[in-house]
Amino acid sequence: MTDFDAYRNKFPHAKLTRSKDGVLEVVLHTDGDTLVFNGYTHEEFVDLFHHIGQDVGNRLVILTGAGNAFIDRIDPDGFDFFSPQGYDKIYREGKKVLSNLLDIPVPVIAALNGPTTVHSEYVLLADIVLATPDTVFQDKPHFAFGIVPGDGIHSLWPEVIGSIRGRTFVLTQQIIGAEEARTLGVVSEIVPRERLLERAREIAGRIVRLPPLTVSYTRVALTQKLRRLVDESVGYGLALEGISAADVGRSQNR
Amino acid sequence: MTDFDAYRNKFPHAKLTRSKDGVLEVVLHTDGDTLVFNGYTHEEFVDLFHHIGQDVGNRLVILTGAGNAFIDRIDPDGFDFFSPQGYDKIYREGKKVLSNLLDIPVPVIAALNGPTTVHSEYVLLADIVLATPDTVFQDKPHFAFGIVPGDGIHSLWPEVIGSIRGRTFVLTQQIIGAEEARTLGVVSEIVPRERLLERAREIAGRIVRLPPLTVSYTRVALTQKLRRLVDESVGYGLALEGISAADVGRSQNR
Amino acid sequence: MTDFDAYRNKFPHAKLTRSKDGVLEVVLHTDGDTLVFNGYTHEEFVDLFHHIGQDVGNRLVILTGAGNAFIDRIDPDGFDFFSPQGYDKIYREGKKVLSNLLDIPVPVIAALNGPTTVHSEYVLLADIVLATPDTVFQDKPHFAFGIVPGDGIHSLWPEVIGSIRGRTFVLTQQIIGAEEARTLGVVSEIVPRERLLERAREIAGRIVRLPPLTVSYTRVALTQKLRRLVDESVGYGLALEGISAADVGRSQNR
Amino acid sequence: MTDFDAYRNKFPHAKLTRSKDGVLEVVLHTDGDTLVFNGYTHEEFVDLFHHIGQDVGNRLVILTGAGNAFIDRIDPDGFDFFSPQGYDKIYREGKKVLSNLLDIPVPVIAALNGPTTVHSEYVLLADIVLATPDTVFQDKPHFAFGIVPGDGIHSLWPEVIGSIRGRTFVLTQQIIGAEEARTLGVVSEIVPRERLLERAREIAGRIVRLPPLTVSYTRVALTQKLRRLVDESVGYGLALEGISAADVGRSQNR
Amino acid sequence: MTDFDAYRNKFPHAKLTRSKDGVLEVVLHTDGDTLVFNGYTHEEFVDLFHHIGQDVGNRLVILTGAGNAFIDRIDPDGFDFFSPQGYDKIYREGKKVLSNLLDIPVPVIAALNGPTTVHSEYVLLADIVLATPDTVFQDKPHFAFGIVPGDGIHSLWPEVIGSIRGRTFVLTQQIIGAEEARTLGVVSEIVPRERLLERAREIAGRIVRLPPLTVSYTRVALTQKLRRLVDESVGYGLALEGISAADVGRSQNR
Amino acid sequence: MTDFDAYRNKFPHAKLTRSKDGVLEVVLHTDGDTLVFNGYTHEEFVDLFHHIGQDVGNRLVILTGAGNAFIDRIDPDGFDFFSPQGYDKIYREGKKVLSNLLDIPVPVIAALNGPTTVHSEYVLLADIVLATPDTVFQDKPHFAFGIVPGDGIHSLWPEVIGSIRGRTFVLTQQIIGAEEARTLGVVSEIVPRERLLERAREIAGRIVRLPPLTVSYTRVALTQKLRRLVDESVGYGLALEGISAADVGRSQNR
Repeated sequence: MTDFDAYRNKFPHAKLTRSKDGVLEVVLHTDGDTLVFNGYTHEEFVDLFHHIGQDVGNRLVILTGAGNAFIDRIDPDGFDFFSPQGYDKIYREGKKVLSNLLDIPVPVIAALNGPTTVHSEYVLLADIVLATPDTVFQDKPHFAFGIVPGDGIHSLWPEVIGSIRGRTFVLTQQIIGAEEARTLGVVSEIVPRERLLERAREIAGRIVRLPPLTVSYTRVALTQKLRRLVDESVGYGLALEGISAADVGRSQNR
Repeated sequence: MTDFDAYRNKFPHAKLTRSKDGVLEVVLHTDGDTLVFNGYTHEEFVDLFHHIGQDVGNRLVILTGAGNAFIDRIDPDGFDFFSPQGYDKIYREGKKVLSNLLDIPVPVIAALNGPTTVHSEYVLLADIVLATPDTVFQDKPHFAFGIVPGDGIHSLWPEVIGSIRGRTFVLTQQIIGAEEARTLGVVSEIVPRERLLERAREIAGRIVRLPPLTVSYTRVALTQKLRRLVDESVGYGLALEGISAADVGRSQNR
Repeated sequence: MTDFDAYRNKFPHAKLTRSKDGVLEVVLHTDGDTLVFNGYTHEEFVDLFHHIGQDVGNRLVILTGAGNAFIDRIDPDGFDFFSPQGYDKIYREGKKVLSNLLDIPVPVIAALNGPTTVHSEYVLLADIVLATPDTVFQDKPHFAFGIVPGDGIHSLWPEVIGSIRGRTFVLTQQIIGAEEARTLGVVSEIVPRERLLERAREIAGRIVRLPPLTVSYTRVALTQKLRRLVDESVGYGLALEGISAADVGRSQNR
Repeated sequence: MTDFDAYRNKFPHAKLTRSKDGVLEVVLHTDGDTLVFNGYTHEEFVDLFHHIGQDVGNRLVILTGAGNAFIDRIDPDGFDFFSPQGYDKIYREGKKVLSNLLDIPVPVIAALNGPTTVHSEYVLLADIVLATPDTVFQDKPHFAFGIVPGDGIHSLWPEVIGSIRGRTFVLTQQIIGAEEARTLGVVSEIVPRERLLERAREIAGRIVRLPPLTVSYTRVALTQKLRRLVDESVGYGLALEGISAADVGRSQNR
Repeated sequence: MTDFDAYRNKFPHAKLTRSKDGVLEVVLHTDGDTLVFNGYTHEEFVDLFHHIGQDVGNRLVILTGAGNAFIDRIDPDGFDFFSPQGYDKIYREGKKVLSNLLDIPVPVIAALNGPTTVHSEYVLLADIVLATPDTVFQDKPHFAFGIVPGDGIHSLWPEVIGSIRGRTFVLTQQIIGAEEARTLGVVSEIVPRERLLERAREIAGRIVRLPPLTVSYTRVALTQKLRRLVDESVGYGLALEGISAADVGRSQNR
Repeated sequence: MTDFDAYRNKFPHAKLTRSKDGVLEVVLHTDGDTLVFNGYTHEEFVDLFHHIGQDVGNRLVILTGAGNAFIDRIDPDGFDFFSPQGYDKIYREGKKVLSNLLDIPVPVIAALNGPTTVHSEYVLLADIVLATPDTVFQDKPHFAFGIVPGDGIHSLWPEVIGSIRGRTFVLTQQIIGAEEARTLGVVSEIVPRERLLERAREIAGRIVRLPPLTVSYTRVALTQKLRRLVDESVGYGLALEGISAADVGRSQNR
């Protein structure tokens, strides 16, 4: 297993701190401000979640963002969507990033510090979701690029908010506000921005008072069904996304 | 693949029109007014959804009804529920109608023009559901005939609105109004009758602006889970329904 | 198959009465008052649900409690959680109690007469849930004992109320009131205490007017999906709970 | 849990003896000679396997037959295949007999003392199969009655001997001899008749020297996949068999 | 449902004849001699199997080939593998051809008249496979074109002959002769060429003496598991094949 | 992704060399001779397979052993099976080692250089298995330690060699020789010791001549079903193994 010091400073877009009782806080960021998602962060997060999951010193994870949004900007830098070889990297990483996140064997609290419109499926693998009142959800980038949202968006949203609601959300690029998200069951609790982390730590503190194996195996038991869902849907979804990207790539070259 | 002209006028209970950008409108009807569901329409719709699914010219489907209800009348004409040989036809068609509807490889918008109390499971395979304020849902015919609602009603309602809610809906022949249906996630949006089709076309228009493969593979990805649910539940459900019908048939003959 | 008289008086913690039309009422109790759940009732209920399921004379089951709570007290008497051999009994019974309850081949109405904070997963296998206004749900005992809630709590709550809502409920020992439970789809209807059984009987009476095979096979069809969920999640969940209990047992012995 | 003395003499068609180390021998018989399978044994075996599975005193089960065949005669006595109400009993029992056999939480050795042409699917749920040189397998009764072999024959044979081999076996009423059965993987070992039980006891003796939980959980782990197969295939198969029986019943009445 | 005369002469590459007792013989051919598989036959067979499955007059199907091979030549004519739009046609048809073949609700006997090295997965969906002594199996075309054998070859071969055997067969382009194929369970029986059809008709004749529903529902029950396998593996496999084809297409254009 | 030089010398028990065309040879060993499996190699191999799978430079993997056995010695050094905390490490690693091996996105050839009696389930995840004539298979260690073989042995052996054969193999600690293993489908080909690696390289060389994405996605497609099997069976199996180990641990302490 890995040692915290060996990886804590390894990730340029994730600031890691850990409390004495093993609560790991992960702040996603770009130069200390709101994360700009790009091809490099896609690769980096595969490794980030892998290391977090391997370290038995982590007893609970709080995942949050810097600045005023969780993730709402995406930049094509570092992505090659439009050639099969380039897409292969996205396909490999896209499968691994979700399975690594899901394989973190301790509870994950997402503390959403604002809009979440890029890779919102990460949030759906958290067990508890806190959100500021200005948090909104949407799937922006796929249809903006003209490609299939096949990276888990297509299967996890219907799983979490219901079949028709989830399919409508994806196809209409619907914007869901914090209050509605709470009603739909994506958000566990709405918390003012200034109390967001404090509240996450309160909840975390109560959980980590339980014996370590109990905390860990409760996460394993609670996410068993999601493991199969991710395994069955994400590889296939990404393959369909890849064909659609190859098609978009060809039209652009013509 | 098939050509639109080859099948557009083939279906006495479905009026088909298609816009230049490939949005197919399907209006279910009986002599131009609200559909009366019977054994002949049961057979006809198997073929209808098959042809729609095979035609690559269809880029999105809007499914609606004529008159003041989507489907709320059923007539025994053309059905033979009570002999094993007669039921065999219903069993074969009942499996095929749902798998053909689900295999339509482009998004389906249901535009419900009023009460939907017969074969409401068709609606649950649509990706976006618009409904007029007077739309209500119920499963009327099965318990009226004294038989098991095993044609997909039993599995799709719990899938879409939740396990206990769905089982209660079926067992108590509950009536769900449009507003409640929106809260429960069956209806994506309530729309005044006079704007119903217009609104469906607006949404359709935005979707079909995306590249054709993207639109199609998004439907495929979004419905992957439902494919297994239908495959695993409908054949078995219909077989149980068939035994219950044979039992009812015997009591009537005695 | 079994005969009602052979088992009706066999269960010290369940009072059984059956109407002429086959509606079986099961009142869980301890000495006539609110049930105190312990190791003996755990064993007894395996057998109770087995006998109910085997008796074709039962056409519908109403499950309720005595006193002012459905189940909200647990006593360690009769449980040996902390040795592998002792836990083996809990593991065997824990798997069987849920599969026997689910295998009851007729509809089950839970009539909750108050707080339900112990083994609330029983309720989630009922098809219709009525509750008094003072009913609340929580999972109290597992985290109080420091062990994994792996007996079905972990899989059935996310199934019934949604993935994130269910995981949050378990991890935060959340208390859900009757009104919220209705909104979340656990409770079908809130009913004043004095009308609770009357209302359950009304609903039951309408259902048992249908032909017996129809009533039975509708339950079978409606619960098909839950059968797999229980089979796949409960054995594994209980095994994880067992390891966590062995760990707690060791710490106590040191 | 149950006590051996409470059920050892309860079953007219099964002689039960148990060694000091917990090896239970079950000899199926009719009046001490080869079993004649009928409607009464169908019901009796549901209960037999239930009791065996509940008794923690059983550490391993040897299942064999009296006389010169394991099971190769069937008698319509006690069966009512041809009315829906009569078939319902077969449907309920048919599901339960396999799930109760599979739920026996200790290894099962089938010691086949000759031809096995009726309910051969029981054997496929055993973990180790010994057979005399004159043992043959076939599915005789279903096609002789003109009905679907939907009681597990249809799913377990392809599972054990391969997809096409299994389907061919059922559709052609193929006879498989002991040697071929060994090659196909149904029979673990061919043993002369006079050594059959001795050999079963040797193997049993070695297994029960392991710790009790180890023996039990190895069976549970080894049969996990079969549990789902049985759950998913047997109810549906029996429902189809029931419709085919209702059809045969009608032709006979005409 | 359809009428035999309406489709019997519709398929240029399949000669259809039907006996009085409903045994349909389908001879795949090109101008009366061994079939040359190409893009047109790919499309034609989707429709062929659809019509066969819809016609209740078909009580059993014998599938064979003309000339000295079942299928062992493939021609690129009519295929566009290398553009996303062209591949989309292959993807749609590839999914449909297997599900339509599997949905034929009566037993299918494959009577292999020689080498089967193209689309051999069709054969694996038959229930009984007869083969001449010179029949060999291999998957030739995919690796010859440099693409993934994702059309069912990848999942059905391991299902039928075992996991490692099937994967080795695909990856090494292994040639399996008739005798070995019988040992591995692909071939039910080896039959001299001059007796091939006669033998298929003998077997067919015995099966169709059973009541029609029994014959049909036995096929449905026997293929239930394959339905899920095909549904879960073929869409995904074809999507991966499509990406690999796009990659090959790009290299050729450079 | 990772670079070969970064990890090639990182593993004390695995010698890694890679040919120019990307064929990676992995020789498991202890000080250059036959591997002695212990708690340290258990941990090391999790990481080994992870790194191999992440490196796009690997186009095919040959897995073999040093000395005269693949793996047939196990040493308790570095394992703590008998405390819940100690077993937790084994549980975490045991799940990860198989999923990391399976997630290697290129074909794996196992070249077995002799007896394989410890962790033989690794071999079953290879796509092609070559073995020397003296190779034998058995599951030695679990029953020697008195614990459940729940690490994949219990599910992968029945998957690969058939349900009853696999269960018999585990329960009787059966020894299977090379020739029988070939007949049962575990071994693809028997190869004299002096030609073992040469033959593996021949096969590898032919496969890697195909385009890289084709090679990779063929492995992904061929192993899709195993991914679910491993996910569903290994966590649960290991949890049962853990309880049995805790029981053994307690008896030893008494």
